[in-house]
Amino acid sequence: MSGNSFGVIFSVTTFGESHGPALGAVIDGCPPGITLDERIIQAELDRRRPGNHGAGECEASGERNPAVTPRKEADTGEILSGVFRGKTTGTPIAVLIRNTSQLSKDYDNIEHLYRPGHADFTYAAKYGIRDHRGGGRSSGRETAARVAAGAVAKQFLKEAGIRITAFTLRAAGVSCGSIDLSVIEQNRMRAADLKAADLMEARVAELGRNGDSAGGIVECRVSGVPAGLGEPVFDKLDAELAKAILSVGAVKGIEFGGGFEAADSRGSLWNDPIRNDGSGAVFVTNNAGGILGGISSGADIVFRAAIKPVPSIAKKQQTIDTNGNDADIIVEGRHDVCLCPRIVPVIEAMTAITLADMYLRTKMWLC
Amino acid sequence: MSGNSFGVIFSVTTFGESHGPALGAVIDGCPPGITLDERIIQAELDRRRPGNHGAGECEASGERNPAVTPRKEADTGEILSGVFRGKTTGTPIAVLIRNTSQLSKDYDNIEHLYRPGHADFTYAAKYGIRDHRGGGRSSGRETAARVAAGAVAKQFLKEAGIRITAFTLRAAGVSCGSIDLSVIEQNRMRAADLKAADLMEARVAELGRNGDSAGGIVECRVSGVPAGLGEPVFDKLDAELAKAILSVGAVKGIEFGGGFEAADSRGSLWNDPIRNDGSGAVFVTNNAGGILGGISSGADIVFRAAIKPVPSIAKKQQTIDTNGNDADIIVEGRHDVCLCPRIVPVIEAMTAITLADMYLRTKMWLC
Amino acid sequence: MSGNSFGVIFSVTTFGESHGPALGAVIDGCPPGITLDERIIQAELDRRRPGNHGAGECEASGERNPAVTPRKEADTGEILSGVFRGKTTGTPIAVLIRNTSQLSKDYDNIEHLYRPGHADFTYAAKYGIRDHRGGGRSSGRETAARVAAGAVAKQFLKEAGIRITAFTLRAAGVSCGSIDLSVIEQNRMRAADLKAADLMEARVAELGRNGDSAGGIVECRVSGVPAGLGEPVFDKLDAELAKAILSVGAVKGIEFGGGFEAADSRGSLWNDPIRNDGSGAVFVTNNAGGILGGISSGADIVFRAAIKPVPSIAKKQQTIDTNGNDADIIVEGRHDVCLCPRIVPVIEAMTAITLADMYLRTKMWLC
Amino acid sequence: MSGNSFGVIFSVTTFGESHGPALGAVIDGCPPGITLDERIIQAELDRRRPGNHGAGECEASGERNPAVTPRKEADTGEILSGVFRGKTTGTPIAVLIRNTSQLSKDYDNIEHLYRPGHADFTYAAKYGIRDHRGGGRSSGRETAARVAAGAVAKQFLKEAGIRITAFTLRAAGVSCGSIDLSVIEQNRMRAADLKAADLMEARVAELGRNGDSAGGIVECRVSGVPAGLGEPVFDKLDAELAKAILSVGAVKGIEFGGGFEAADSRGSLWNDPIRNDGSGAVFVTNNAGGILGGISSGADIVFRAAIKPVPSIAKKQQTIDTNGNDADIIVEGRHDVCLCPRIVPVIEAMTAITLADMYLRTKMWLC
Repeated sequence: MSGNSFGVIFSVTTFGESHGPALGAVIDGCPPGITLDERIIQAELDRRRPGNHGAGECEASGERNPAVTPRKEADTGEILSGVFRGKTTGTPIAVLIRNTSQLSKDYDNIEHLYRPGHADFTYAAKYGIRDHRGGGRSSGRETAARVAAGAVAKQFLKEAGIRITAFTLRAAGVSCGSIDLSVIEQNRMRAADLKAADLMEARVAELGRNGDSAGGIVECRVSGVPAGLGEPVFDKLDAELAKAILSVGAVKGIEFGGGFEAADSRGSLWNDPIRNDGSGAVFVTNNAGGILGGISSGADIVFRAAIKPVPSIAKKQQTIDTNGNDADIIVEGRHDVCLCPRIVPVIEAMTAITLADMYLRTKMWLC
Repeated sequence: MSGNSFGVIFSVTTFGESHGPALGAVIDGCPPGITLDERIIQAELDRRRPGNHGAGECEASGERNPAVTPRKEADTGEILSGVFRGKTTGTPIAVLIRNTSQLSKDYDNIEHLYRPGHADFTYAAKYGIRDHRGGGRSSGRETAARVAAGAVAKQFLKEAGIRITAFTLRAAGVSCGSIDLSVIEQNRMRAADLKAADLMEARVAELGRNGDSAGGIVECRVSGVPAGLGEPVFDKLDAELAKAILSVGAVKGIEFGGGFEAADSRGSLWNDPIRNDGSGAVFVTNNAGGILGGISSGADIVFRAAIKPVPSIAKKQQTIDTNGNDADIIVEGRHDVCLCPRIVPVIEAMTAITLADMYLRTKMWLC
Repeated sequence: MSGNSFGVIFSVTTFGESHGPALGAVIDGCPPGITLDERIIQAELDRRRPGNHGAGECEASGERNPAVTPRKEADTGEILSGVFRGKTTGTPIAVLIRNTSQLSKDYDNIEHLYRPGHADFTYAAKYGIRDHRGGGRSSGRETAARVAAGAVAKQFLKEAGIRITAFTLRAAGVSCGSIDLSVIEQNRMRAADLKAADLMEARVAELGRNGDSAGGIVECRVSGVPAGLGEPVFDKLDAELAKAILSVGAVKGIEFGGGFEAADSRGSLWNDPIRNDGSGAVFVTNNAGGILGGISSGADIVFRAAIKPVPSIAKKQQTIDTNGNDADIIVEGRHDVCLCPRIVPVIEAMTAITLADMYLRTKMWLC
Repeated sequence: MSGNSFGVIFSVTTFGESHGPALGAVIDGCPPGITLDERIIQAELDRRRPGNHGAGECEASGERNPAVTPRKEADTGEILSGVFRGKTTGTPIAVLIRNTSQLSKDYDNIEHLYRPGHADFTYAAKYGIRDHRGGGRSSGRETAARVAAGAVAKQFLKEAGIRITAFTLRAAGVSCGSIDLSVIEQNRMRAADLKAADLMEARVAELGRNGDSAGGIVECRVSGVPAGLGEPVFDKLDAELAKAILSVGAVKGIEFGGGFEAADSRGSLWNDPIRNDGSGAVFVTNNAGGILGGISSGADIVFRAAIKPVPSIAKKQQTIDTNGNDADIIVEGRHDVCLCPRIVPVIEAMTAITLADMYLRTKMWLC
């Protein structure tokens, strides 16, 4: 495959550039009979849309979310195929998202400059041709197609009892003090702690005012996963999830369960003891993050992703131009300051696509 | 695919259990005309072998390496196909490694118990049948086949000017103070700092005496990678490497370049400035770890993997038996105490396989 | 993969049902820098369109082509991505074809009947749900997406010097007496012999008047293929072409070069002698059809496909209803009588997609 | 993939050259719990072995089978992995077949000549390097690995109630007059008609005495296939079978059901009427060959493959040498005269591998 498809059975192919006519996704391998309509997809697209993350009340207050770009994108998802009378038919589901806010002239001044921290240089090196308008295919806008596909995966998983929740664990140096999954959609950072969210917002706003940007950590938790998903030795569940999450542009690392703390731990502390709680096997701790030997154990799957600071900043930076000469660049326009709140639905989407695929790859053993 | 193959063009399939007749790998897609013989493969197998990591002088001294199991495995790799007159022919290269040290009776006492931290429980849940002898397919011994395949990949990459070096960055709570790649094979921890190596060894030995085990961090650096490798949007170079490395049993996380430090950084510090040093584009810093937008930039690729403590420990642990009843378990036999030194060649192998594949997937653009 | 993608490097995914909102194709893996615009795609779509096969003069004469349905389909292909300033960018090329002639009420009377010779029964058996409108995904209309993707493949191959020509070799019991590739687009049967074409047309018209339909044989010839394409032992060039062509709905068989005549031949007659004609190796005969051991030899690739009679006929037929009861069916509406002329561009498209993929899979060896 | 693997879920990778150390197959994706041992594999290997096709009594009579080479190959299959206590474990099953009869000196005289009808020329063109000993990877000997893998597939299918039978329908110009599947293993041509078998043998013997060879047609019938197998639109069941069968070296064509007779038929004769026979849907005729729209219908799957004459003949032939100069060649040694009897188990094997894969790809819908 040439890199724009993900998954073996539940397989997603995306297409589209930031400033071309449209983005879209083709979801092949979704079982027939799953309830699906455009509202289900739209709800997820809306979560990723600029200006609609965080709680409605924030928006209603008229305050601008300091973390995100004010660019307006309707991001309307149209189902083109694969659904008949409100149910999936087992044939490919295509979702189309027209680009409507294409101010590609904004990018004319960078046509001959490589933006630091962006893929401008590497795309030119690889393809010899570059669609400079807003990053083209490397734009974060491409994730809208993933979110649409993820909405289908989520719907399938929902019927299988699997629930995925991601949130901002840390941003701009501020961590959640406690974890309350119920407050995630009530704050504009999509943090799991309202107090921490306020502090995150303040720091993000300050960085934005200074022409700078912030990184963070997003955590993802999945409940209801049956034991048995994952295909060793290469397509282990954690390996597939790692690929899925690292395929999201701004992600620089991933860790499962106890993660990098494993380095300083020892076997007697790290191994999760197993007990029978009357209903079956339970793991007393979850350093494994719900995966042993690359196969789900039935415990919650837990992982965290490192999110780099938004590379588009207002400060002057050193770069080279397309002729190879040293140059300075100032990236104009309004951009996100911290990606965490908008990347939360993307990470959920990639997690859902991966789990739908691994579920279908495994289901035969469960029959 | 069913999980035992890795790679699209340079594709590796492995087979074999810890205590079956043999392990092996089939490498499909290696270009013809590459110099290859059994000594090249054997050299890498020997690096992974218990009792042969670290410098020869340590072995000569008669001291046992405290980090690793004294189990003797000859691990002789036999090339069965794909090589004619010392050159690859473009047809599949099969490498066979017979199991010779199969004391499967050692495992009779755990036939009906699930070892904590191992894949015993999840394999039983998935397959309904379990080869309990030494972990069967989930054994670390499976990585011998990866190392054999990696040796072929390394040979191909060597002819393309790409060099991969991994080392123990941290183990048992001790980090390398400085990085000197030339000393890695001179110490039994495969650390890049001889002083730190001594301290690591001492701590590992103490944990071993206490019936416990240690985790660590392995870093991998790749030089000579041309700009342009990686297939966005899903098969990004970092995504593929993440999958490859997370597919190694004991790995719980991976980070590229600046990694998780991204969370607390800001764009103005994180973005790597680009300059022309006379010979072409260079990146002043390498927070990106040599990959931008999922494509290699020409800078060194740098990543780190979190290694969990060896789960086989001599201390009594809580578990359940195969009937679901609570039970205690003491894992008998001699096991590695810290996986870092032996996992170094495995991480190099998986990196090599991934890069060989991504190189061949990209090469057409470079022609 | 779930069956709606074809190709490893040059990979095509199609979506869409006969009577849904749209059909389309996503072409991933097309190299950057290939000249492409919508007119190139439209020209091929127009060849497949009902009422536009055969020569323009026939159409101008006002006579209806007796072989094909009078259904009007604009079949306008819109490029949604992957092209910038008239050149491919190396990112996925999506082509959208809106359905505009959707008289799905025509199919209400067969909602509860399985049409003989169609996929109605098997789709219901497989998916448990059936989009009965015009065959849904199993409709021949799906091939419009293949033709759009094939136009991209043809454009790529054209730049590599490869030319594909298919034609009707036999229809309704009439064979071409001689082969003149220059007349194919000058007759409505797309035959390679104008006299035979007239006779074919007459017989097809008569069958149509009788409420019946006709089968035929389509031959495909490919010139300019370099020696070396094909990936033994499973992905042989003929094996991949066979899959591609058999994936077209009405095709019941394929043969390469001398084909089924091999059965009655002997080695001394069948083997193609090799000579050096001054410019290089030439094959004196072409019983092999341009492929030896699954690899192109440099000789023209030649194969023939058996096309079954159109299953939609006006005669009464025996079937069962969706409750399993015996029933009679008369398939109403106007349908093609002989698929040959319209399947010619489809076979060319699938051949082009296959060769583009095999070329890219092989190109590395040619560098 | 690089061409040496077949199948998505039930996936087979083969390796090995005619005169290298060994051949083998890795079968990944076989479900756990299937009964398997080496005798099951050996039984199929023995059917393909020279000197053991056709009935035992023929062999006992001391007469040599005129159709096949007298080369002695033990072809012992050793299971290296994936089986524990007589059952598959769900992990990869590797089967090793050592080459024991390697008279590679026999081929020294053709090291610098391309044999007509063989892959010598195209392998050299593709790989730039050629293992000339007995055809290397392109040798028919490679099919031993397929037969071993097919034995595993057959065992899986047997437990699912699916039975595959191939036989020689026509050879050296002689067709079976009637079809009696019970006599196939009672004659050395593996024909389904004992009288025709005698005549085939006589003609084949005569051709062999004249230094020539014969082609034929092999038919394959599969019973017990449930409706619903096949993954449209590209991975249709007939498309996958066509690829599988065309991947066998000597096959030049395939047709399903009525096959090429479709060309001269009409819809009213070709469409298979559907009736309810009390137990469910039955097809009154089987022109479709058991597949509609690329999905199995529940009727028997029937196809025929065209087998070319053995290219190794004793007559002098025209060719070129590896420097491109015209030359004559006489292929020495004893070779098969007609491949039909030995290709029968190979066609069964490829059919079994394909059906096992398509069954597992479909099974989720059946749950």
